[in-house]
Amino acid sequence: MSMEDYDFLFKIVLIGNAGVGKTCLVRRFTQGLFPPGQGATIGVDFMIKTVEINGEKVKIDHFGFEQDLTFLQRYLVADQHWRKDNGSILFYTGNEGDITWFCNNTGFMWDVAEELNAMLVFAEHRYYGESLPFGNKSYSDSKHLNYLTSEQALADFAKLIQHLKETIPGAQNAPVIAIGGSYGGMLAAWFRMKYPHMVVGALAASAPIWQFEDLVPCGIFYSIVTNDFKKSGPLCSESILNSWGAINRISSTVEGLKWLSSAFRLCSPLKTKQDVAVLKSWLSDMWVNLAMVNYPYKADFLQPLPAWPVQVVCKFLKNPKLSDKLLLQNVFQAANIYYNYTGAASCLNTSQSATRNLGLTGWYYQACTEMVMPMCTDGVNDMFEPRKWNFQEFSEECFKLWKVRPRPSWIVSVYGGKNIISHSNIVFSNGGLDPWSGGGVTRNITDSLIAIVIPEGAHHLDLRASNPGDPKSVLQARAMEVQYMKQWIEKSRHKL
Amino acid sequence: MSMEDYDFLFKIVLIGNAGVGKTCLVRRFTQGLFPPGQGATIGVDFMIKTVEINGEKVKIDHFGFEQDLTFLQRYLVADQHWRKDNGSILFYTGNEGDITWFCNNTGFMWDVAEELNAMLVFAEHRYYGESLPFGNKSYSDSKHLNYLTSEQALADFAKLIQHLKETIPGAQNAPVIAIGGSYGGMLAAWFRMKYPHMVVGALAASAPIWQFEDLVPCGIFYSIVTNDFKKSGPLCSESILNSWGAINRISSTVEGLKWLSSAFRLCSPLKTKQDVAVLKSWLSDMWVNLAMVNYPYKADFLQPLPAWPVQVVCKFLKNPKLSDKLLLQNVFQAANIYYNYTGAASCLNTSQSATRNLGLTGWYYQACTEMVMPMCTDGVNDMFEPRKWNFQEFSEECFKLWKVRPRPSWIVSVYGGKNIISHSNIVFSNGGLDPWSGGGVTRNITDSLIAIVIPEGAHHLDLRASNPGDPKSVLQARAMEVQYMKQWIEKSRHKL
Repeated sequence: MSMEDYDFLFKIVLIGNAGVGKTCLVRRFTQGLFPPGQGATIGVDFMIKTVEINGEKVKIDHFGFEQDLTFLQRYLVADQHWRKDNGSILFYTGNEGDITWFCNNTGFMWDVAEELNAMLVFAEHRYYGESLPFGNKSYSDSKHLNYLTSEQALADFAKLIQHLKETIPGAQNAPVIAIGGSYGGMLAAWFRMKYPHMVVGALAASAPIWQFEDLVPCGIFYSIVTNDFKKSGPLCSESILNSWGAINRISSTVEGLKWLSSAFRLCSPLKTKQDVAVLKSWLSDMWVNLAMVNYPYKADFLQPLPAWPVQVVCKFLKNPKLSDKLLLQNVFQAANIYYNYTGAASCLNTSQSATRNLGLTGWYYQACTEMVMPMCTDGVNDMFEPRKWNFQEFSEECFKLWKVRPRPSWIVSVYGGKNIISHSNIVFSNGGLDPWSGGGVTRNITDSLIAIVIPEGAHHLDLRASNPGDPKSVLQARAMEVQYMKQWIEKSRHKL
Repeated sequence: MSMEDYDFLFKIVLIGNAGVGKTCLVRRFTQGLFPPGQGATIGVDFMIKTVEINGEKVKIDHFGFEQDLTFLQRYLVADQHWRKDNGSILFYTGNEGDITWFCNNTGFMWDVAEELNAMLVFAEHRYYGESLPFGNKSYSDSKHLNYLTSEQALADFAKLIQHLKETIPGAQNAPVIAIGGSYGGMLAAWFRMKYPHMVVGALAASAPIWQFEDLVPCGIFYSIVTNDFKKSGPLCSESILNSWGAINRISSTVEGLKWLSSAFRLCSPLKTKQDVAVLKSWLSDMWVNLAMVNYPYKADFLQPLPAWPVQVVCKFLKNPKLSDKLLLQNVFQAANIYYNYTGAASCLNTSQSATRNLGLTGWYYQACTEMVMPMCTDGVNDMFEPRKWNFQEFSEECFKLWKVRPRPSWIVSVYGGKNIISHSNIVFSNGGLDPWSGGGVTRNITDSLIAIVIPEGAHHLDLRASNPGDPKSVLQARAMEVQYMKQWIEKSRHKL
């Protein structure tokens, strides 16, 4: 398996959360253990905490008893708008990254806190940020990684909520709502499905819960990416489609490699076929990421970018029929927007990750175990070089990397796939521009499993802080989301 | 901790299934692996099978990826009344014992199969019967026992159902109903809660899902036992209450020990204080078991017994004021009914288990990990010697025995405790005479979480085969259960 394939199979890594939110001032209020009953003091802005529950720390293995090891889970609390007598708790189900980053990029929660008298809690996902079960050995081998699963993460959330309810005055009967985006959105939805006694409802933003097995066509993700480019400029996607052939032709000579390295101002000149594969993968990532963060205003999620960045790059990509060199010079202009919008870089680095805040290694492992999301391209319904989904190859690669085998049908077995009709009180929101919407729930399933589609929205635009550049559709979506949350809260109060 | 305490703490072990059903002819049709797609051939009466799913065997660890070990799970299938075009599947969620025994003691399923066009499937619980993940090493230490949990068992059931649906023609869209009694009833209810995409509903018979933490008073179990004796004969429970003091007084001398050994026709004469503790525990077990299997007709569940066995033994126990020796001679008469109804035993053995078909060792381990059911007695609201619930002591004992620590709050955290309102399509049935009804759901929670109480019923009488001696209340209960099952099936067909 080539490096190129490797990158392709892991393209699923680019599932991150977003929304340039309120600045979360990190106050390292404490990092040690709280004595039982004293873990709930709440600071200004928010507090970083680690949790000890009922005198025990969080179990590393909720589902086995051989080892009784524990670890410190970090979570953030903001209580400026919390009301003891009549408050709610908005609980962010942390995903694959440092929780402070998600906290800073989920402005929606901060914006609605006052209206819902809500305490905000951001729970860090085990194995990410500072919640490392085995410290710096957490990633050392498959033995230490064995407890990095969605089920363990959900159990952490359940135990944390129990702890908050037991220790924060007024929290015992406060309704809790799970909120998350992307993988965090899947966790929010799954948490409501598996622990409905812990949360009265869930907002699952841009959560591709159906991007598994054959629940959706494997090509849907890349075809949505392509559509974004089609809509953002005439002949833009055709230009990108043609660029792969141009790269292949030019890179076939030593001369051409030199030219490419210079045209793309690469920090390390291209030398081998594999370097070229890395370049293509780096460009491919860029197109995907641009579609994901195609926000209507200037933002800095994966990279600092202008408003509607896909339109901006498409301005360079209007003529697919240009000569190979002219076409690729235009592609470079696009890359220079994405990877160097600030203009600070003197050269571009194809090994540079555009997702510096995400825990890539952890997500690779998750993709190699539970989170097997089949992806494919055909160059017809999308603007990428054709590549089939090859599970066997993927499985071999996973085994080489981690000594584990993916279980492609497990997520559907455990979380129900498309058969989720028995659950309730989940809002699935999706952006029409977001490639992940292809694996998302975009039609109402019942009157309490609601789909909200934001046609002008990229990856969980609704979770981002309110912005003057927001399109009307996201304002409407947020208003609906608040309405549903209020309903859930109201109903839960009647049941008490 | 004395042997007596040990027994007391584990009295929870006596949670078994029942119902003298149709005889299940065991045909060892195969024990090997089925090639994928060929695991579904169905034999006469029922077949014993082991399952290989999608070319993989069942994972020993559904929740971790470090080890990719598999094992053979046994299950039984009976398809005499199955209809491919319009059938349903009744899925027995096996509990702590050999599955063939449960199959033979769940006549209700056989009785309703024709009416529901149902295929019957009895799935063996991992670590019991022949479904031993590590063969004869399965119980060797805490490392090998690490995968004996309810969550793993539920995941086994999910994977097995998926396998049946994929391999049996006509099964793909057939509605599945989970059925179980006792711990198996808890599993049936929990399975519907956690995997509602796999089963359209669940019948949880005599399932004490609330016998955890402080959800019910710890004394409720023994007070129900006591009430059964109170109702079954005048001064019966008082006689039993007084018998403990009589034993204590008489056993205080060597002479007395001799007398006791002879009066109870014990195979091994009593010598030490601990032997006396074992005797008391053995008697205490007997009273509990008699209450559990207080069926209205002759039956052979835990032991061969006459109809209404509590009434039968109470005939010997009418006068609590008798001298110690006369009182204990009467207690012996009772013991001779319970432990020697057939009259075949020449002496009685206090180490004899009344639950030969149950996997006691496995259940001990489960009680020491997840299934922590607090029990206590006070000698006032019950007829037993007072004993408080002592978690610390229990935990120490578990650690000594298994090198594991119980997690007393886990079951409530993971399955919701009393907050199960969001779930649907579960019938909880309980017998008024069954001590386990104290931890059961005996009032409707919603219009689809239904409680059925059978006042004259002992431990899951409703799951037993129809019998001329059945009281009207169990006939009504079974009729209601069938009605609900038909509703679930009907509704699921409309959704397709």
